[in-house]
Amino acid sequence: MNIGIDMMGGDYAPQEAVKGVKQYLLKNSFEQLHLVLFGNEEQLKPLLSENEVPQEKYTIQPTSQVIGMNEHPTKALKEKTDSSIAVGFQHLAAGKIDAFISAGNTGAMMVGAMFSIKVVEGVLRPTISSVIPKPDGSTGLLLDVGLNADCKPEHLNQFAVMGSVFCQYIFGVENPKVGLMNVGEEEGKGNILAQAAYPMLKSNKAINFIGNVEGRDVFRNQADVMVCEGFTGNVILKMAESIYDIAQEQQIDNPYLNRFNFEIYGGTPVLGVEKPVIIGHGISHATAFSNMIDVAVKMLNTDVLGKVKEAVQRI
Amino acid sequence: MNIGIDMMGGDYAPQEAVKGVKQYLLKNSFEQLHLVLFGNEEQLKPLLSENEVPQEKYTIQPTSQVIGMNEHPTKALKEKTDSSIAVGFQHLAAGKIDAFISAGNTGAMMVGAMFSIKVVEGVLRPTISSVIPKPDGSTGLLLDVGLNADCKPEHLNQFAVMGSVFCQYIFGVENPKVGLMNVGEEEGKGNILAQAAYPMLKSNKAINFIGNVEGRDVFRNQADVMVCEGFTGNVILKMAESIYDIAQEQQIDNPYLNRFNFEIYGGTPVLGVEKPVIIGHGISHATAFSNMIDVAVKMLNTDVLGKVKEAVQRI
Repeated sequence: MNIGIDMMGGDYAPQEAVKGVKQYLLKNSFEQLHLVLFGNEEQLKPLLSENEVPQEKYTIQPTSQVIGMNEHPTKALKEKTDSSIAVGFQHLAAGKIDAFISAGNTGAMMVGAMFSIKVVEGVLRPTISSVIPKPDGSTGLLLDVGLNADCKPEHLNQFAVMGSVFCQYIFGVENPKVGLMNVGEEEGKGNILAQAAYPMLKSNKAINFIGNVEGRDVFRNQADVMVCEGFTGNVILKMAESIYDIAQEQQIDNPYLNRFNFEIYGGTPVLGVEKPVIIGHGISHATAFSNMIDVAVKMLNTDVLGKVKEAVQRI
Repeated sequence: MNIGIDMMGGDYAPQEAVKGVKQYLLKNSFEQLHLVLFGNEEQLKPLLSENEVPQEKYTIQPTSQVIGMNEHPTKALKEKTDSSIAVGFQHLAAGKIDAFISAGNTGAMMVGAMFSIKVVEGVLRPTISSVIPKPDGSTGLLLDVGLNADCKPEHLNQFAVMGSVFCQYIFGVENPKVGLMNVGEEEGKGNILAQAAYPMLKSNKAINFIGNVEGRDVFRNQADVMVCEGFTGNVILKMAESIYDIAQEQQIDNPYLNRFNFEIYGGTPVLGVEKPVIIGHGISHATAFSNMIDVAVKMLNTDVLGKVKEAVQRI
């Protein structure tokens, strides 16, 4: 199992990426795992040695360029062919690595995932999701959170299936409850999209559809998987992220609000492409990198993308 | 100035409605103010007398029916012609009252406002807004929050104008900053609607457009007025409301989070109809009723709906 990591991505790279690798390996050093680290060799070597990362567990794949956080994704990927993200995707596409992780330019990661890696047969639109902390200690899944700002009902129907499979295999939730994000409880409520998606979700036998959920249910236990188009999903996610900032500013130290520190979840996988691609937050520290490796390993061990493929083709 | 109040609407009516009337009058008993109280006379009389509400300040308009919180709005308004909401709108339409307030069935209030009261000339779609607490102590305005689940760019453009006028005359904000709710900062980001609305807002000389705002900016001071379609707006509002519930459950006593108790803002006015209609939250207590009367008085005193009319016609 070869997992590729962009060591240059994120606000605190490469230091925190190296620490994250160390953190993961201290807890999970199984024999089959090998890490391929994409980045500036001169910067990485001393850091890896300082942090005593066991040499047999990694290979450095030297790259000379970095895509900045604010660069135009398509342009940057095209022009910076020796960037850690571009080279990472080349390796993933060529099968030299089995999964690719980065906390770098989100747009470039999405473009890379969409155009370097094949879309799972039958999937209309790959999607990105986010973990949502629930007060009972569990986590929900919200999707799409920004890859698809405009959607058709059949896209939401597939997001529901992909989210359910992910929730089942990665979070270990049996028969996850799926809710449609909406403005009211009853069938028939909502905008044109939600009104059309409801009956489709209701008749979808591949999911456990529980009906509509509302803004007030995002942080409740109503649904394990919440589906919406990427516009609303992105607004919800960014609002949820801001709750942690508010708690920090207000000096509120509360166990539940602390779980709104999205870094602890690592990153968000792209669902619907054939290989695991995990996109981390720009502010990722060591724990986020360690958790992203963890998610990648789980995705490979459970063959969750294979399950997604089967499930989507059953709709 | 005759202000009508549905005394039977809301979870704690009529007791809290009566207390709210008392609370308002204790602070603001100016001569021109007269309140018309719609509801069950037998229930109201002893409550008003117990609470020592000065008799010269109100008239009871007896009604025999109540529209329940979960009744179908159109059906209920049509069938319960002697309900406090239906009679209230009849009085408003006939000019017997100048404004109408209710914490009852939200849908019935919206239907009543749309079909009993004339839409301001030039307004394409009336809208409902919500106050959003900002950490600096100020309040922002978010609209639409649910009256218009599907919108066209020109609707958002008018919401921006109506929200700006409200923010200026009712909150006293000079030249309020208007932000377009979106998924990224740059022009060109967003779904089809947001992409099309941006240039329209940018060239709208009746507003002070500052560009896109994101989910993370909802509780920041970037914009005084945030515009979006009613689907996203409703999800944002209900998420914001749930923050107060979370704080209560987690026993967090924080001055800023306490301002997420939306009751303190009273209610949301319908903007774009010719007379003030104010819709309160079902859980309204005395303070909410008092604040709704306050907003109605301010709306009449400033002729904010006249200003909305002028502004919309200048676009």
